[in-house]
Order: sequence, then structure tokens, then C-alpha cells
Amino acid sequence: MFSGLSAFALTPLNETGIDEAAFVRLIERLAAAGVDSIGVLGSTGNYAYLTQAERLRVAQLAVRHAAGVPVIVGIGALRTRDVLALAQDAQTVGASGVLLAPMSYQKLSAEEVFGLYGAVTQSLTVPLCVYDNPGTTHFEFSDELHGRIAQLPNVASIKIPGVPGDLETVRQRVERLRALIPAQVTIGISGDAFAATGLHAGCEAWYSVMGGLFPELAVAITRAARQGQVDEVARLCAPLAPLWTLFLQYGSLRVMATAAELAGLVPHPCLPLPLRSLQGEARQQLGAILGSTGLPV
Amino acid sequence: MFSGLSAFALTPLNETGIDEAAFVRLIERLAAAGVDSIGVLGSTGNYAYLTQAERLRVAQLAVRHAAGVPVIVGIGALRTRDVLALAQDAQTVGASGVLLAPMSYQKLSAEEVFGLYGAVTQSLTVPLCVYDNPGTTHFEFSDELHGRIAQLPNVASIKIPGVPGDLETVRQRVERLRALIPAQVTIGISGDAFAATGLHAGCEAWYSVMGGLFPELAVAITRAARQGQVDEVARLCAPLAPLWTLFLQYGSLRVMATAAELAGLVPHPCLPLPLRSLQGEARQQLGAILGSTGLPV
Repeated sequence: MFSGLSAFALTPLNETGIDEAAFVRLIERLAAAGVDSIGVLGSTGNYAYLTQAERLRVAQLAVRHAAGVPVIVGIGALRTRDVLALAQDAQTVGASGVLLAPMSYQKLSAEEVFGLYGAVTQSLTVPLCVYDNPGTTHFEFSDELHGRIAQLPNVASIKIPGVPGDLETVRQRVERLRALIPAQVTIGISGDAFAATGLHAGCEAWYSVMGGLFPELAVAITRAARQGQVDEVARLCAPLAPLWTLFLQYGSLRVMATAAELAGLVPHPCLPLPLRSLQGEARQQLGAILGSTGLPV
Repeated sequence: MFSGLSAFALTPLNETGIDEAAFVRLIERLAAAGVDSIGVLGSTGNYAYLTQAERLRVAQLAVRHAAGVPVIVGIGALRTRDVLALAQDAQTVGASGVLLAPMSYQKLSAEEVFGLYGAVTQSLTVPLCVYDNPGTTHFEFSDELHGRIAQLPNVASIKIPGVPGDLETVRQRVERLRALIPAQVTIGISGDAFAATGLHAGCEAWYSVMGGLFPELAVAITRAARQGQVDEVARLCAPLAPLWTLFLQYGSLRVMATAAELAGLVPHPCLPLPLRSLQGEARQQLGAILGSTGLPV
């Protein structure tokens, strides 16, 4: 489950609630495209903005409509108490795995984060992926801490942030981490712009935002990369470069939410206020990029 | 209400709930010490870690036990929807004012933050203090944005983060902001280490963490500062310098929570996991500092 393409779905919503029909359509598209796993309630799925009851419902819908594809459910929250409850909920509705980022309001210490993973992994019956995303959690894992957490029971993967640099640089970074973790724990790359290099450098999984909306292309890139088809991967990725520029400028969530709106897959707006999808010129620019790449708009 | 000493109370709690008796004792101490206002559910009050129902209860207890001292209630949340509900709750239980920080998970744009304050201020019947705390919200206000928000109805104060530097530097910073906001909007300093200089530099309020536990001393510093007694303020503040060093190292919340534990005012632990109060050497060091300053331990 924690290898190949893991596609992270949006959770379309507005101020009155979640658009369940639109969410189910997104999940069904992912299952039909043959992704290796479906991630729900990741950052792309707005987990941090939803109540426990809403998150339970989203997890339930995902499992129900995934047509047997394993579903990984995000269980992050500011409080250990809430993470434990969310883990229980995810397991109850049939999640195949869980994803946990050390969300923070007060800056967390390494010992506090280790304590969080210790408490949660002890309570689990499904495998866990450690979600390392300093851009949203404002917590920087050291490799030493990753090594300690990876020894905990039920830890099965680490979702690392995008690693800039050439193949050799990225390979060295992945190998440094690999040397500190048990052999059965996979390393997955996130930050879509860095996915191709990450996969070439030995990451077993791509935890993908764009894959949540354009699963066929993401599946093709992942399979080609895992077969070592460097040229084919480059060919598939080339038209996406302008998209990565927008990701950098506006955040991948806003860009993918807007793309889903433009494609008519979700209503507009589909993000929780105060977040807004792209407007005006940026929105037009995205439409033009999607048009020129042949992706649906 | 948004001038003088605003003392921010801890919300003592553990994994099973809030210690209401201990919280009420903290509130009663503040009222008895003659603080100008009591802040609850600020960062020091762990607002970000509590449910809406828990926050309603804390606000209610604070108003009930404040003996007529105005109570300012923190209403921050990641979602506008939740902030609006919390504002309503705070007003219902009799808060005199509210405090709003632009909490973030996804990095917020200036327009998104302006939209948040626009929606909330429109819904209010009590005044609002803009809570600028980039260390926890990861949002950096520009002065231009402060100026725009301060024009919104019901905005009455801005709680700025500590400004390092000498008196003249801080005065210039305060005056730059003052030039952009309406005359009736006060500026309050936070970051206890910077409070004395901030007050000397013309801030009307001190939004104080240490004042939540040591209100007599904080009241004395505030009054002396507002009367221009620079030497007296320096004398009162001098023994606190080692405390500010610990604040910097561990965060003011952990230090004050530990101090409250050491003083027997709250049970141990009193923070929501994964947060932990100071242990071992750091805890002993804090005890020694508090002993040498004559503050209760």
C-alpha cells in the first residue's frame, strides 16, 4: 500500500458542509485509474479544517467507494487525544492505513513529537505513514528522529517533503534516511515537482497531490519511473512544469482545488474559508496551462 | 479594556478534561490583583487545543469569576466557520471583547486574512483585538494590512509581537503602525521580555503571559511604565531576565505552565499532550529562578 502511486483526493466543501457527491466522484475516478492507494484527509483533503464527525464521514465514503483500492486516512490533529480518536475512527470504517503529521500551534520539541507517535502507534492495528511536511506543520524532523520513530510498531512508511537538487543529491538524501530506518519501512516522495527525481532516486512511493485529480498521468509517470524509463518520465512531466510554478506561488491545494473547479468536478467554491481558490488572472493562467497540457479543464 | 495590563490565564487541563477548579482559582487571583483585563483562551490558555464546547465552558467560568474585570476571549480557529461560532459563544457568555489570531495550516494570503477579519468583525457586538503572533500562526502581518483591518468595525486594539531593540527603535516601530490605524485603536505589546520597552515606547497595553501567573508584579510594572518611571520599571524587571531566557528556549507557555505546577496552583501535568511542561534540569532551573526572584514557587 505504501508504494507506487498514492493519490490524495480533495475534500470539496463549502461553509455549510461537505459535497459528498463530488467527493465520491473524485474517489471513483481514482479507483478507476488504477492508483496503488488513495489518500484522503491529507493536506489536500483539508483534514485540518474538519470536525471529527466530518472526518469520520469522509473516511467512510472513501472506503465505501474505493472499489477495493487501499485507503490511507489522515489522522493529524493538534492534540494527542484527538489523534487517538481519529485513528480509532479510521480503523472502524476500514482504512487500510493512516497518515500522521505532527500538526502544531505551539512549536513542538522532538521529544513531544516522539511521544505523539509512540502513543498513536501503540493504539493502532493498521500501518502508519509518518507525514513530514514542515511547510504546514512547522516541525522539522531530524533524520535521527525519523530513525527512532521508524522503529515504533506499525510504522510502515515516511512521506518526505520534496527534495530539490539533481538525481545524485536526491539519491544521497534518500540513502541517508534509508540507513537509519528498518528495511520494511518505505520512503515516499511528496511535492509533485520533485516526484520524478525522487522516484528515480529510490523512493518507493509518490504521495501525490496532482495524482488526486489527474490519476492516469500520475500512474503513468510512477510506473515509468519505477521501471527506470528516465526519458519517458521526462516526456510525461515536461508539460507540467508551469503547474509546479503555480504550486510554488499559491500552494498545491489552491491550484488543484481551482483545477477541479475549472474541470467541473467540484462546485466553486470548494475550499473552507478563509482559504480561497485562485481568482482573476491566476485562475485564467491555470486554465491556459491545463488546456495546453491536454489535461481536462 | 484594551489598555493597561491584560493578564492571560492558563487553562489547566489533562487528557480527560479541564481542571475547572484550578482555572477558577487562577481567574480569581487575577481579579484580586487588580489587572485591567483578563485574557482567556489566548495561546497561554491553549485555545487551539480545545473543542468548541470546552472553550464555551472556559469563557463562561472566566466571566463568572472575574468579579467584574473585563474578560477578553480568544476566538481563533483554522476555519472562518468555527471562528464565527466561537465569537457567538463568547458574546453569549458575556465576554467584554474577543481576540482573534489568523491561525493557519495552509499558509494564508493577506487577502484571505482580511476576508477573515471582515467576516468576523461584521458579526460582532463586542470589540475585537487583532492578535499578531507569527510564532504560532505563521502569518506575517504587513503594516499595510494592519491598517486595513483596523478600519473594520469593532476593531479596538492590535496585539503586536515583541519588538527587539532599544527604546528609539521600538518607538519608531510603534509610531509607524500608529500612523496607519484609527486613533481609537490601541496598540498592545506582547512577548513579556519586550513589554517594558514597549510600554515606554507608547504601547497602551501589555498583553502578558507572566501577568497571568504573577499579576501583582505585572500590574506594578505596567503602572510604573505608564507613569514614565523608567528606573522603577527597570528595578522591577531586572530579576526576571533569566525567565525571559527560558521563554526563548522553551516557549512562554511551557515555562509558565511549569511555574504554575511548581507553585501548586495547578496539577501536574497541566498541558495538552503532545505538549509537556519542563522536566528534569530545566524544571529545576526554573524553580531556582523563581525562588531567587521572590516569586512563589
